[in-house]
Amino acid sequence: MSPEEFRAAGKQVVDWIADYYAGIERHPVRSRAEPGEIRAQLPAHPPERGEPFAEVLGDLEEVLLPGVTHWQHPSFFAYFPANASGPAILGDLLSSGLGVQGMLWATSPACTELETVVVDWLAELLGLPEHFRTDAAGGGVIQDSASSAALVACLAALQRTGADVARRGITGRHVLYVSAHTHSSVARAARMAGVGADNVRVVDTDPATLAMDPRHLDELMAADLADGAVPTMVCATAGTTSTTAVDPVRAIGEVARARGVWLHVDAAYAGVAAVCPEFRWINDGVAEFADSYCTNPHKWLLTNFDCSVLWLADRAPMVEALSVLPEYLRNEATESGEVIDYRDWQIPLGRRFRALKLWSVVRWYGAGGLREHVRGTARLAREFAGRVREDPRFELLEPVPFALVCFRPRFPELGVEEANERTLRLMGELNDSGELYLTHTKVDGRVLLRLAVGSPQTRREHVEAAFARIRERVDAPA
Amino acid sequence: MSPEEFRAAGKQVVDWIADYYAGIERHPVRSRAEPGEIRAQLPAHPPERGEPFAEVLGDLEEVLLPGVTHWQHPSFFAYFPANASGPAILGDLLSSGLGVQGMLWATSPACTELETVVVDWLAELLGLPEHFRTDAAGGGVIQDSASSAALVACLAALQRTGADVARRGITGRHVLYVSAHTHSSVARAARMAGVGADNVRVVDTDPATLAMDPRHLDELMAADLADGAVPTMVCATAGTTSTTAVDPVRAIGEVARARGVWLHVDAAYAGVAAVCPEFRWINDGVAEFADSYCTNPHKWLLTNFDCSVLWLADRAPMVEALSVLPEYLRNEATESGEVIDYRDWQIPLGRRFRALKLWSVVRWYGAGGLREHVRGTARLAREFAGRVREDPRFELLEPVPFALVCFRPRFPELGVEEANERTLRLMGELNDSGELYLTHTKVDGRVLLRLAVGSPQTRREHVEAAFARIRERVDAPA
Ligand SMILES: Cc1ncc(COP(=O)(O)O)c(C=O)c1O
Ligand SMILES: Cc1ncc(COP(=O)(O)O)c(C=O)c1O
Repeated sequence: MSPEEFRAAGKQVVDWIADYYAGIERHPVRSRAEPGEIRAQLPAHPPERGEPFAEVLGDLEEVLLPGVTHWQHPSFFAYFPANASGPAILGDLLSSGLGVQGMLWATSPACTELETVVVDWLAELLGLPEHFRTDAAGGGVIQDSASSAALVACLAALQRTGADVARRGITGRHVLYVSAHTHSSVARAARMAGVGADNVRVVDTDPATLAMDPRHLDELMAADLADGAVPTMVCATAGTTSTTAVDPVRAIGEVARARGVWLHVDAAYAGVAAVCPEFRWINDGVAEFADSYCTNPHKWLLTNFDCSVLWLADRAPMVEALSVLPEYLRNEATESGEVIDYRDWQIPLGRRFRALKLWSVVRWYGAGGLREHVRGTARLAREFAGRVREDPRFELLEPVPFALVCFRPRFPELGVEEANERTLRLMGELNDSGELYLTHTKVDGRVLLRLAVGSPQTRREHVEAAFARIRERVDAPA
Repeated sequence: MSPEEFRAAGKQVVDWIADYYAGIERHPVRSRAEPGEIRAQLPAHPPERGEPFAEVLGDLEEVLLPGVTHWQHPSFFAYFPANASGPAILGDLLSSGLGVQGMLWATSPACTELETVVVDWLAELLGLPEHFRTDAAGGGVIQDSASSAALVACLAALQRTGADVARRGITGRHVLYVSAHTHSSVARAARMAGVGADNVRVVDTDPATLAMDPRHLDELMAADLADGAVPTMVCATAGTTSTTAVDPVRAIGEVARARGVWLHVDAAYAGVAAVCPEFRWINDGVAEFADSYCTNPHKWLLTNFDCSVLWLADRAPMVEALSVLPEYLRNEATESGEVIDYRDWQIPLGRRFRALKLWSVVRWYGAGGLREHVRGTARLAREFAGRVREDPRFELLEPVPFALVCFRPRFPELGVEEANERTLRLMGELNDSGELYLTHTKVDGRVLLRLAVGSPQTRREHVEAAFARIRERVDAPA
């Protein structure tokens, strides 16, 4: 494709995307496709001859869109938001266009240096400690996901135990600590790092706050030590996936520090809220105790997937765990020790110029615009929670610290199991309507609906319409 | 950013990229930035107020570009190509624009189903076996990189040994087998999976072909077994990073099969050459013996990073190793067993709609266009090799099976060490000139220059100019 062909097709694509956003409410939020339906409409064999780009766009529109769930729809309230925004999309486009591979500083210095600057900016915006900055012993890095960040943290933690796992492999029994509400990525990291799911201890949570109990954590660690195992990492979550509960990072940190155990703080969803001073409380204990800390601009901070930022208090054990330097990657800059080679900070080797999208977002919105986005969406969520709280037909899970509301219809006439079933059926009907999209979780055996506000497209009317729709359905004869 | 603001800024960005490609030869191929130079020009603090997108583009041009190494420059001959192309960039733009998260089939059915179709197409284009297709027990998946693919393969291999590593962790001593020319990602996978670098055996290579010796592999496996260790995976490479040597996949496969060891075939760079029948020989033994196979459209097949395809002969052990299903991800489609949830096929949880870019590439170029690209670049490499072969000042590493040429100036008056130093100095001078960019490797103690052709921008004149430049420098007084 020549530059001029690219110019023409590129403008068609930009128009297509602009039109898509302008008309996004025409689509049902959740795709109604049945398994295999989209695949059946696509040719089983690749074309022998090239086709004009317009045909790709045509098939996107006709064949693929019905199979797309519209994550950017203003009434997408499922999971957590994975919000995109114009500047993020364009920053990403620039990254694709430049097509640089930033595995080493030397393979494109600006890719590494902009990343360093932007993660330092974000640390400042979130009020994270000075020692997370890249000119100290620590530093930040963009990962594809919080899951990979958790794996990197786990590998660094294993290395720091002194067992030299990178060289010798897992020899002893290493133990990770989570709560029942910790994201499954930590259990997955245990599986992938050779620790094993059996060596993940589930620490009790406070039944009222769903937050990890540091006392129980300490007991479990003591028992493991007595048993000859090596307590290796605890993950504290600031904003759990299920309900955005917040673990007591400081108290967990005190326990971990006393026992020399790595503290990873997973703030994948909620961490970015700290752009607003009124949310800075979620950083309590991070400066003193966190060995690693992760939050995802690709969830609530207007940066399209993939962009998860991991900071380390000390990068040395991570680099020790992950660095391998074959001849074909040797270069003067690496040998000088003056540069960062981010390939030693991540699972893959190659890397995109992802800093461009985060840089574009921070510059386009400014700190003020980012605060407004977080505040505005959190306000809409609180308003929705207010409606739920006032309505006797519903039970609200309190508090609502961020922009996720968990609630359930009371169905007083039904037992727990029936009520759960009924709630799931209700959710299915709502989602089938195409007017909104919710997901669920289960706390204490009870199904809760989750409504997460986070899209820059979402306005008050969408949240109000969602509440009206839900209430209507609860009232409808079963 | 409103849709209309996006439309306007998006067209500016498209123009910027079109102009960038049209004028790419104005830039020195390799950035001349010194460590810290780019960073020093960027503000230390994020802006409080948002800025127009034009300012981002302005700074990209003025501040960042001097720090960019131009991977898409027609005289970029370093590493392996990471070629982009118009349709890939636009497919990626569509992915960013739609902003869907394809972790589960249910979170956007088209994201999963298009991926299935496109990796099946690619399997067909490359002549890979039927059982790699997704409607059999195996299946393909797009990974971010061949490194992650190697880790996934390693985790599946560990699981298949029956030790239930996912649950119990690494308990025995598992061993991986590579050659000195295997990509470092396998050793890295060993470090990350808890196997440990010490448990990676380096199998001898044939000094003439640099290919792995299956006899020695068998001996090492026998010794490890006798020693109570568990031979777990061997990686055979079709097109090594250093010199594009090809391991004897069939013979290695026979050894592996006899001992029940997982065979991973890493064809990250060269595998895509099999779009051309004349390169299909590299698949010899894959159908019969490969448990997993990986090649990177993001290297030589016109698809911008990240797009590495991993196929499995049997996906069950991988899914067993990687699947965790928390309540908040439960959904009917998953429970029906009728769909693929690609999150169980990769290290991260979340995933972009990466199939769009590969789909765009295959449709724009067609099978014919892809063959032309591979053939054309391989032809240019062979022509360059011909020049080197005919010139007594150089020594050529033969054969040149793909589009990488390894060679060195003879410097008959110098000893090995001096010649190596002189060659590296020569390379440094060439790269400093900004007119081309080469990298090096070391074989048998001797430094070789590597010239890889692969960009759709590269024409004969660029390769000829490179040869002229190199010869000129060799002739220049030291
Ligand atoms: C608390 C928490 N951690 C980790 C993750 C995983 O995020 P990612 O998709 O970036 O791996 C999530 C996703 O919802 C999350 O809520
Ligand atoms: C043979 C081989 N395997 C694996 C890789 C790693 O590729 P990636 O950057 O996709 O991890 C390379 C990169 O050059 C390679 O040449």
